[in-house]
Amino acid sequence: MTHVTSMLETYPKDLGTIDRQKLAECIAACFECAQTCTACADACLAEDSVADLTGCIRTNLDCADVCESTGRVLSRRTGASAEVTRAVLEACRTACKACGDECGQHASMHEHCKVCAEACRRCEQACTDLLAALG
Amino acid sequence: MTHVTSMLETYPKDLGTIDRQKLAECIAACFECAQTCTACADACLAEDSVADLTGCIRTNLDCADVCESTGRVLSRRTGASAEVTRAVLEACRTACKACGDECGQHASMHEHCKVCAEACRRCEQACTDLLAALG
Amino acid sequence: MTHVTSMLETYPKDLGTIDRQKLAECIAACFECAQTCTACADACLAEDSVADLTGCIRTNLDCADVCESTGRVLSRRTGASAEVTRAVLEACRTACKACGDECGQHASMHEHCKVCAEACRRCEQACTDLLAALG
Amino acid sequence: MTHVTSMLETYPKDLGTIDRQKLAECIAACFECAQTCTACADACLAEDSVADLTGCIRTNLDCADVCESTGRVLSRRTGASAEVTRAVLEACRTACKACGDECGQHASMHEHCKVCAEACRRCEQACTDLLAALG
Repeated sequence: MTHVTSMLETYPKDLGTIDRQKLAECIAACFECAQTCTACADACLAEDSVADLTGCIRTNLDCADVCESTGRVLSRRTGASAEVTRAVLEACRTACKACGDECGQHASMHEHCKVCAEACRRCEQACTDLLAALG
Repeated sequence: MTHVTSMLETYPKDLGTIDRQKLAECIAACFECAQTCTACADACLAEDSVADLTGCIRTNLDCADVCESTGRVLSRRTGASAEVTRAVLEACRTACKACGDECGQHASMHEHCKVCAEACRRCEQACTDLLAALG
Repeated sequence: MTHVTSMLETYPKDLGTIDRQKLAECIAACFECAQTCTACADACLAEDSVADLTGCIRTNLDCADVCESTGRVLSRRTGASAEVTRAVLEACRTACKACGDECGQHASMHEHCKVCAEACRRCEQACTDLLAALG
Repeated sequence: MTHVTSMLETYPKDLGTIDRQKLAECIAACFECAQTCTACADACLAEDSVADLTGCIRTNLDCADVCESTGRVLSRRTGASAEVTRAVLEACRTACKACGDECGQHASMHEHCKVCAEACRRCEQACTDLLAALG
């Protein structure tokens, strides 16, 4: 998370009233979750039981895409729109919940799904916390 | 839009009750808007008056990212989640409205903003139409 | 391709000596191929024979990502770097060739792979043509 | 980098002869650089001297896109293609070098460009090291 914080600290204008700690945590969680879901989709593809994991792969791919675009939107502070911020956070929370639930069902069978479910839960919580902090 | 339709037509399983025409239009609009917003952000950068267009560039970049992830999520039909679909469509509609409004303000000055505002309006409408069709 | 051309036509500065027709074709091919590969990966996931298509899914996902980033880089004309342009075109050509070859092997069995192989071939050719035009 | 390593460790099949440490470092560097470049483009937009930073913003946007797609490709181990891996690493190295050079020129003026140049250098080096390790 250090690099996320460093970039927020060197932002040249006032960051406004947003909770910087929660913002940094959410940005870091989005990028972490995007990478983890990309890797989990691929690990599922490598399982002999791939035919039972197609729903998981799909949910992983969606979650990776939504987390990535959300992490990018949140990384931008210039002319930030409260409505767009809220809408992408809601979408990201929804995608992370769906993926955390799905991967959670395979967590006892597949260690990668367990790790991924945890990343999704963290990102879901970080989105929820940031939404709450936005007031 | 032909290639989007071709891929929907060759999908091996039942596509369910979703309105295929509206789905294809929305997918195509998302990818078109993502490209147009990427190009508009760059065209704004090339303007002598770039200092007056920083809000427009930011909104363009957000819209490109959200449209792209939405277009990808919609392109996937396997194990589709109604909640995730709705949430990304809401986020995309919001980002397109913000960008269409912003580019619309510069449309009389900058032709690229005019073209981009139209792409944003089309994508916003396509998201709204697909959301309505989802019931 | 109309929207790609419209944005190139409204670019406020000189586009330089680049072949505009080949540039527009390559940008359009990249976004089309990104969408098609995203949909083909998902269609493969929906096949009963998904266990035989894991290599195809993986190649599709790579090709979608590389085409998308290449389409974005090419859409930007401000301060364009010849080296970066060349490097992303080489990567895109390589990813499209790999995916066209892989999907081509399943084209007789799966119509979506046939459509996708054609999109990959078009994009590979468009990258090759633009690289040649860059001199 | 912990989450990247966790996913490599839980990959269900043999990872082959690839240097896992260098692979993990490169994946982590790609995602970190993508976030940093996204934030640096935005910080440049917020500078009063934005008109002097348009080349930097453009290079940042390219680097973010190329790093992201490279980080995704590298995160996939199933059916990995040596040619595609090499080609995306070459493109990423080139984009990171261009962005590190550009941001490096503004490092004494803008702290965000200094932080970003360092992220680009790390990612360029990680790509170079992984390419060398691929043999």
